[in-house]
Parts: sequence; structure tokens; C-alpha cells
Amino acid sequence: MAKSPEEQHPVKAYGWAARDNSGVLSPFKFSRRVTGETDVRFKVLYTGICHSDLHHVKNDWGASKYPMVPGHEIVGEVTEVGCKVTKFKVGDKVGVGCMVGSCRSCADCKEDLEPYCPKKVLTYDFYYPDGTILYGGYSDHMVADEHFVLRWPENLPLAGGAPLLCAGITTYSPLIYYGLNKPGLHLGVVGLGGLGHVGVKLAKAFGAKVTVISTSPSKGQEALERLGADAFLVSRDPNQMQAAMGTLDGILDTVSAVHPILPLLSLLKNHGKLIMLGAPAKPLELPVFPLLMGRKVVAGSNIGGLKETQEMLDFCAKHNVVADVEVIPIDQVNTAMERLEKSDVKYRFVIDVGNTLKAP
Amino acid sequence: MAKSPEEQHPVKAYGWAARDNSGVLSPFKFSRRVTGETDVRFKVLYTGICHSDLHHVKNDWGASKYPMVPGHEIVGEVTEVGCKVTKFKVGDKVGVGCMVGSCRSCADCKEDLEPYCPKKVLTYDFYYPDGTILYGGYSDHMVADEHFVLRWPENLPLAGGAPLLCAGITTYSPLIYYGLNKPGLHLGVVGLGGLGHVGVKLAKAFGAKVTVISTSPSKGQEALERLGADAFLVSRDPNQMQAAMGTLDGILDTVSAVHPILPLLSLLKNHGKLIMLGAPAKPLELPVFPLLMGRKVVAGSNIGGLKETQEMLDFCAKHNVVADVEVIPIDQVNTAMERLEKSDVKYRFVIDVGNTLKAP
Repeated sequence: MAKSPEEQHPVKAYGWAARDNSGVLSPFKFSRRVTGETDVRFKVLYTGICHSDLHHVKNDWGASKYPMVPGHEIVGEVTEVGCKVTKFKVGDKVGVGCMVGSCRSCADCKEDLEPYCPKKVLTYDFYYPDGTILYGGYSDHMVADEHFVLRWPENLPLAGGAPLLCAGITTYSPLIYYGLNKPGLHLGVVGLGGLGHVGVKLAKAFGAKVTVISTSPSKGQEALERLGADAFLVSRDPNQMQAAMGTLDGILDTVSAVHPILPLLSLLKNHGKLIMLGAPAKPLELPVFPLLMGRKVVAGSNIGGLKETQEMLDFCAKHNVVADVEVIPIDQVNTAMERLEKSDVKYRFVIDVGNTLKAP
Repeated sequence: MAKSPEEQHPVKAYGWAARDNSGVLSPFKFSRRVTGETDVRFKVLYTGICHSDLHHVKNDWGASKYPMVPGHEIVGEVTEVGCKVTKFKVGDKVGVGCMVGSCRSCADCKEDLEPYCPKKVLTYDFYYPDGTILYGGYSDHMVADEHFVLRWPENLPLAGGAPLLCAGITTYSPLIYYGLNKPGLHLGVVGLGGLGHVGVKLAKAFGAKVTVISTSPSKGQEALERLGADAFLVSRDPNQMQAAMGTLDGILDTVSAVHPILPLLSLLKNHGKLIMLGAPAKPLELPVFPLLMGRKVVAGSNIGGLKETQEMLDFCAKHNVVADVEVIPIDQVNTAMERLEKSDVKYRFVIDVGNTLKAP
């Protein structure tokens, strides 16, 4: 008979889990492995609520594994390290993002591109080879191989920094890879949610002029005044869009809904790059002629590798980049999910796990 | 009253022109400008028939200007040079491709990217600022500013080399720009027409392993035996396509018809690049998820600038790359156009203008 989540591993753990695609979370007892030779065990302090957590708990992508403890923007404090751990000691502040494993030997792993490893292991909603489920950061503690644990920069706030482990690296990595991190460029950010608002801050930190593009005029003031964007375009206003044609070197498109990309391609200068970060469920319409005439690029990007994620955290610490967060106790997580579904958050919920999660 | 084409400029010229969208070409008398200070005048020897010539003479793109003397793959011998010309002398072999002018001062012009200049002047089916029409290379002679004239490498065949001025640079430029010219890469070429067959030869010359991808199994033998491709895939064979998934570093897609790109994206390795060179009349379906998961790129490219076109010619001369051509006398141009419409050519027609064009 299969063992219960509490009995599968030697170390007791607890958190909040969804039991089915209602997505409703409630207290849950499970277990975690012992601290292996290269493992780091840490008490969870803060965990961000990524928009993808909502998709996972509700099985929007059709492959959810229950019970599910979500959370892949996790900040904590080390409580135990394995005998071969070299990077961390008890008491260190650390982070874990979207991944906790990969093969470490494929071409991508060798180039510090673990997110592209065919054997990558996600932080939650994923199976171990032994068939047990991985549980994420809505929980009292985590254990992970030190390769997948990030050193937390001393002056980086814990709660505001947590979302950088997903939203931060997802916007930082393409800015670097596609050469959009040079000072003086003019960049666009489409969509002002969890990803978009961090994208604006990172682009500014790299020295870009930043234009936010949104369907809703109401986002204008917050883009300009709160986030420090330099300009704002309402994508539904043809006059504004026409006037801005050919002005952008690159665009981060964070929109997950199906939307037209011809207007965005038109905003790009020759040789400009449209970087897709959202994943619309259906194909978009791709007009080829503008790509040819302007040598333009439409490209995608995943999260970054561990080495780059560490660089990103250090960059954010140096440039005072954090997410704008609303910190909640864990017993409000279901309300937060409901509000997130309505985009009623500026811009990321972060659960104060360390102070509010009680043992069941 | 507007002057006739024969009287618009001081120097008599003749060629073959289409008079309307029937696309039928017939002998035509017109005139060209005197040789300006920086101009090169040359007798036309060979002119390639680009597939776009067919679209232009038939007004497929809705903006054709008649009478129309097509031709933008032109090789000739210099007969006169302006007093300030420094690169050429009488008797030199030269080439002119798709462009004969640009502003020379915009950001793109300053970076030798004249095809992206907003004021670029095309070789034919284009107006001079004075309202007169530019006539192409299906004609006895040409005159162009030396900046837009290419030095013909000594050992590069004239007829076989002519199509390089369009098909060659259109495939060479993206291989360079997108970093697909490194030896040892595995590249795909979709479509085996004028562009595709030169693409295969250039990719091989750069040291790539080359896979040709085509809807028609009949192209297999010629791809492998005649063009030296290393492998051949029938895109309609799901087993073949499945077996080749994730094997290509880049793809040159030369197909102008609407076609699915998801199978092509699947052939790419992580970080692979799908370069669109054909211009389908309607948008293609772009699935975004594969772009994100594999950090893949869909991009376009135009012809290259003049500096790069010269490099391409020199590269082709060094590596014995020429187009496979069928040389025809100019009085067979209409038959050639009909055959081209049925893709009945391997792979480019070239008109022997120098020996077969008679003065009307």
C-alpha cells in the first residue's frame, strides 16, 4: 500500500495544500527527506504567490498532482547543512526558485542553463523518480541540493525580494541574453502585473528608457509615478500607437492572453526584438512581412539558470530593485488567490510563512 | 505633357518591359541619366530572373509601375565612370543587386545596413524623386552610383554568380547576423527553390551539416546528390519529423506560402533560430509555448547591405558557391516566366543579355 505523505520521508513537515482542482488550500501534514551530503535545509520565512501557482492549484494546464503545496519564490534561513555543503552555513539567508534539480551533465546544464535541461526537477507539482510528490514553499521548511539554493544578498529585503526568484529572473534573463541590457536603449513592457512591474524596474536599473504598454488607461499613472516608467501607451489608442511606431529597441511582452502582436512589432525599430514571456493558450497571429522588412525578432525565454539567478539577486540588491508586494498571513491565502484571479494586487502577494504558519 | 520614357533622360537605352499586369514582356525603348560624378555605367551581360520579378510584372503586390523593366541580379562590364569614381575603371566586371540608392546618413546607412534605410531606392519598379521610373537589368546597360555597384571577383562565374546578388545575399546575411555561420552547426533549409538551393550551398561552405526539409519526397535525391545536403526530411512524414526533433541549431525557411511553423520549431534545439525569408501573404500561426520552453527565436531578414554583399561575393568566389542556373536568350523570357510560375527550373533562370538582347 502506498505510504501517506506524512510517512513517505523521515522528516515531518507541514504547510498548506490544495487537494483538488477547486484550488482551495488548507493545512496539510507531509514529510521531507533527511539532509543529504550536499543538501541545505532551511526554515521558510517568505513565499511569493506567483500567478502560475493559481494555474497549478486549479489544474488549468491539465497535469496537476494533488495534494499540492505550491510556492516557488521561497526565502528562508538555513537550519542544517549536509557534510559536503560548501556554500552555506546554519543561519544564512537563502532562496529557492522554480527548480530544485537537473541532470548536471547535459549541454545546457554544463552552460549553466538548467531550466532547459530535459531532466529538470521543478520545485512543486512534480514527481521525484520514486513517485512521491515535490512540495513547494507554502510550508514550514524546505530541503534542496545546494546547487539549487541561492545566497541571499545582505541588503535585499526578504519579502520584497522573494518574487525576484521567479518574476525577477524571468525578466532579467532575456534582457541579458537578447542584449537589451545596454544603457540608453528604449524598451517597452507590455502588461503591468507581477512580471511586468519587475521588468520595468530592471529595465530602468539597466539604464533604459522604459515605455509601458497596456490596454487599460488606468495603469498610466501607476506606471509613470509608482514604477518610474518614462512613457505610457494605451495599446487600444491607434493615434498613440502610430506616433510611437519604430521607437523601441526591444519589448518584454508579459501578457498571457491571446493578443495581436503586429502593433507591437510596429513599435520596434529595425532590428528590434519582441520577447514573449507570457504563454497564451492558443497560437498568436504572426505577420511575417514586418519581420523581413525590419529584420525583427520574436523570441521566447524561460527562467534563467542558477548562476544567472544569483547574478540577478546581486544586481537587484545593488540597484535596490524589489517587487512591490502585499504581505499576507498564510490563513489569507485563499482570499489572495481569489484577488489574484481578478488582478487585484499591486503587484505580488507574499506569504509571511515564518510568522504565521502554525503547526497543525 | 509628360515626356515619353525615351525622352526623359539624355542617354538612349533599351530592354524588355511589361506594359501591364498580364506580365508579358516585349522589347522597349527608354533612356537613362548621364554618368554623374560618382556613377558607374556598365553594359549588362547577365541578369537573373528572381521569383519576385514574376510578382512584380503581374502586380501581385498591388503597387507595380508600368512600363516595367525587371531585373535586380545584374552582372556587367564597366563602359564609363564618373570623374570622382574611385573603385572602378572601364573594363571591370561589376554587379548590381536589389538596391541603387539610400540616404547614406541614417543610423542604418551609417552601419552599412542600407536595405533598412527608410529612403532606400530599389533597382526597378520604383520612382525617382522626379517621378520617372527606375528600370532594371533586362536591358542593354545600367548606370548607378558606385556605392551600390559590387566588384566582381575574378574567378566567380558571371551567369552562375548573378543570382547571388539577391538569392545569395538574402541567405548569407541571416547566417552571419544570427550567428549560424559557425562550423559544426546543424542547419535546416526549408524549400528548395532559388533561395533554398543557394542557402544549402552557403551553409555547407560555412561548415554546417545541412538538412533539407520539403513537402515533396521527389526533392530528396537532388538535395542529397546534386546540392550536397547531408540529410533530407519530408515535412509531411510525422515519423521522420519526430525522429529529427531537437536536432537543428537554425533553419532558413524560404517558403512564401502559408505553412505551419510548429513542426519547424520542434526540429530546433533549445536556443535554436527559425529565420523566415519568404513572405507569406497571410499571418502564420505562432505557438508561443515552444518559444518559452526552448528559448527559441523566430526572426526575419532582408537582403544585406552593400559592404556585406561584397563580402558575400568574395566568400562565394573563394568557396566556389554559385547558383545552379539555366541560361536563356532574352526572347525566351516569357516562357521562362511561365515555367518559373510552375517551379519548373533548377534553380534560377539567367538571361544572357549581353549576347542576345538586340537593339529594337
